[in-house]
Amino acid sequence: MSTATNKKTVQLSHGGGGKEMNRLIKDIFFNAFDNPILRNEEDAAKLHFNGNTAFTTDSFTVAPLFFAGGDIGKLAIAGTVNDLAMMGAEPQYLSSSFIIEEGFAIDDLKTIVNSMATELKRSGARIVCGDTKVVPKGCADGIFINTSGVGRILNDHISVKNLQQDDVIIVSRDVGRHGAAILMAREGLALESELTSDCATLWPIVEQLIATNVDIHAMRDATRGGISAVLNEWASASNVGIEVNESAIPVCNEVSGLCELYGFEPFDLANEGTFILAVPKTAAEATLQVMKTFCHCEQAAIIGHVNDRKVGKVILNTPWGSSRYLDVPQGELLPRIC
Amino acid sequence: MSTATNKKTVQLSHGGGGKEMNRLIKDIFFNAFDNPILRNEEDAAKLHFNGNTAFTTDSFTVAPLFFAGGDIGKLAIAGTVNDLAMMGAEPQYLSSSFIIEEGFAIDDLKTIVNSMATELKRSGARIVCGDTKVVPKGCADGIFINTSGVGRILNDHISVKNLQQDDVIIVSRDVGRHGAAILMAREGLALESELTSDCATLWPIVEQLIATNVDIHAMRDATRGGISAVLNEWASASNVGIEVNESAIPVCNEVSGLCELYGFEPFDLANEGTFILAVPKTAAEATLQVMKTFCHCEQAAIIGHVNDRKVGKVILNTPWGSSRYLDVPQGELLPRIC
Repeated sequence: MSTATNKKTVQLSHGGGGKEMNRLIKDIFFNAFDNPILRNEEDAAKLHFNGNTAFTTDSFTVAPLFFAGGDIGKLAIAGTVNDLAMMGAEPQYLSSSFIIEEGFAIDDLKTIVNSMATELKRSGARIVCGDTKVVPKGCADGIFINTSGVGRILNDHISVKNLQQDDVIIVSRDVGRHGAAILMAREGLALESELTSDCATLWPIVEQLIATNVDIHAMRDATRGGISAVLNEWASASNVGIEVNESAIPVCNEVSGLCELYGFEPFDLANEGTFILAVPKTAAEATLQVMKTFCHCEQAAIIGHVNDRKVGKVILNTPWGSSRYLDVPQGELLPRIC
Repeated sequence: MSTATNKKTVQLSHGGGGKEMNRLIKDIFFNAFDNPILRNEEDAAKLHFNGNTAFTTDSFTVAPLFFAGGDIGKLAIAGTVNDLAMMGAEPQYLSSSFIIEEGFAIDDLKTIVNSMATELKRSGARIVCGDTKVVPKGCADGIFINTSGVGRILNDHISVKNLQQDDVIIVSRDVGRHGAAILMAREGLALESELTSDCATLWPIVEQLIATNVDIHAMRDATRGGISAVLNEWASASNVGIEVNESAIPVCNEVSGLCELYGFEPFDLANEGTFILAVPKTAAEATLQVMKTFCHCEQAAIIGHVNDRKVGKVILNTPWGSSRYLDVPQGELLPRIC
C-alpha cells in the first residue's frame, strides 16, 4: 500500500499501542474532545461525585454510518446522553471507545468525531476517557463506537416501576423517524424524501422539566422496539395497565407511507430523540407547556393513560372504535438501527 | 434456518429490542451477573459516590476468543478492573456491552459470560448495566465486548506525571506472556507449549499495597505496547529519564524463544496481568515483600530507576555492558491482541 493511501486510511498500526496510535489519538480525538481531564492521559479519568450517580453504556453499530439527520457519531453521543437524561441525571462525563476496521477513511473518522464534538455541546457532557482498537479488514464493518456515561441524578424518583393509576402518557414528538430514515437510506430512497431521523440530545428539555418541578413518574426514550417496547416494559415493571389512542400518536406522512409499504408499525420503529413520559393527570398541562417550547416538540401530545383494566398489558384503541393489544415487537425489524 | 439451529446461535432478532432480546438478556446475562442494581432494569444504573472516582473504558476484540490462560470474557473484566486498580481505585461497578455476530454459538457466549462472572469475583466488582447489539453475519468477527468501569479512588497520588528522581522501577512478574500466548494460538503452536497468558485481575495485590501504605508514585499495567510503551509514557509525562537493566527483567523461556523466532522484543509484547510501579527507593523492599506474597508475583523485581541522564527517554542497559534507547514500539506487532 502506498504511503499516500496509508495517510488517508486507518492502519492496523493505529491500534498497536505505539507511536501511530498516540498520533491518531492526539491528532483526531484529543483535538476534537479536548478538556483538562482527558488531557491527563491516565488509564482512567479522575472525577468527583457527591451523591446519586447514573451509569450507562451503549454500543453503536448503525448502518449506514451517515443517514438523513445524523451519523454514528451524533447517535453515539445523543444515545448515551439520553439514557442518562431519562434517569433524571445531568450527563457529565462520557467515555468513547472505537473499534475501527483497517482501511477506514481518516476523513470519515474526522467527520464522525467532529459530529460527536458538536453533539456534546448540546448537553455540556465531556469525553474524559477512551480506547481505540483497529481490527483487520473484514473483521468489522467500518466503525463501531461504544459510549458509556456517568452523571449526577437530579430527580431520584423517575423509574420504570413508578407508573401510577391515572397517570397520563405523553409522547414528545412524532414517532418512528429514526427507523424510517435508516430504512430509506438502505433502500436508496433518501433522495426522494424530506424525512430525517429524530436523532437528538434530549437533556435540554429534561433539564427544563426538572427545573419546573414537573412530577415525572417515568421517562424513557423509545429507541429499539419503539414506543411499543417502552410501554410494555412500563406496564410490566409497574404492574399496571396502559391504554393508548392510535389517533393521538403523532406520525408524519413519510413514516406512515413507509410503514404501509413495508408492513411495519410506526410504534415498533426505533427513535433516537423521541421520549415518552408518565406524569400525574394534574401535571400534564404544565409538562406539555414546557415541552412545546422546544424545537421538535411542537407536536408533544397526551397519547394515553394508566389504568387497571389489563395489568401488565398495553391496549391500543384504534380510530375505528376497536381495540387490541400493542405487543412487544418480535423478530428483527431492522438490524443495525443504532 | 431450522428451529434447532436458531436455538443454538445468536440471531439478529436477539438484538432487535423486542421479546428475543429480553429473553437473551435475562437467560444469559442476568443469570450470570445477577445483582440488585442490574435487576432494576433501568436505562442507567443508579449508584452512590462520595469523593474521587475513577472512570475508564476498553473494547476487547481479541482473536482467537479462547487462548491458553483465558478468553475474551476474562480479559474484558480483568482489563477494565486493572485500569481502575492502576489508578489506586477500588473497582466497584462495570458496564458490559456486547457486539455479537449473527450465528455466534450460544454455548460460546455462555462460556464467555461465565468466565466474566468468575473473574468479577476476584475483585468484587459488579456489572450494573449493559447493552447488546447483534450485527449480520460478516459484519463483525464473532464477538466484541466493551467494559467500562467506575470505582472509588483510595490513593489519589498515583499518576503518570508523578515519577521522581531516584524512584525505583519494579515489575510484578515475567513480561510478554499475553502477546506470546496469542501469537502461539494464532500460529497453532498452542499444544506444543506450557505457555499461558498472564491475564489476571490485579486488584487484590494493589489493594494490599494500598493497605500497607506503600508510597506508589506511578503504577500501570503493561498492556498493548508492553513495558516499552509504559516506560516511555512515564519518562515523557513526568519529564524524567528512566534506566532499566535488561538482565533484571524477568522473561520466561517460552517467551524468549518465541521472540527470537519471530523477531519480537519481549518488552514490546502485550501483558494483561503484569504491571510496573515507580516507588521511592526507601519503599522498594516493602513493595516487593507485599507483591511476592501473591501468586504470579514471585518474580517481582527491581528492573531500573529514574534519573536525569536523558530526560523523556528510556535507556536499556544490555547484559553485554552496552546501552540503547528502549523506544515506543512502532508498527503493528500483533493485531487484535486484546
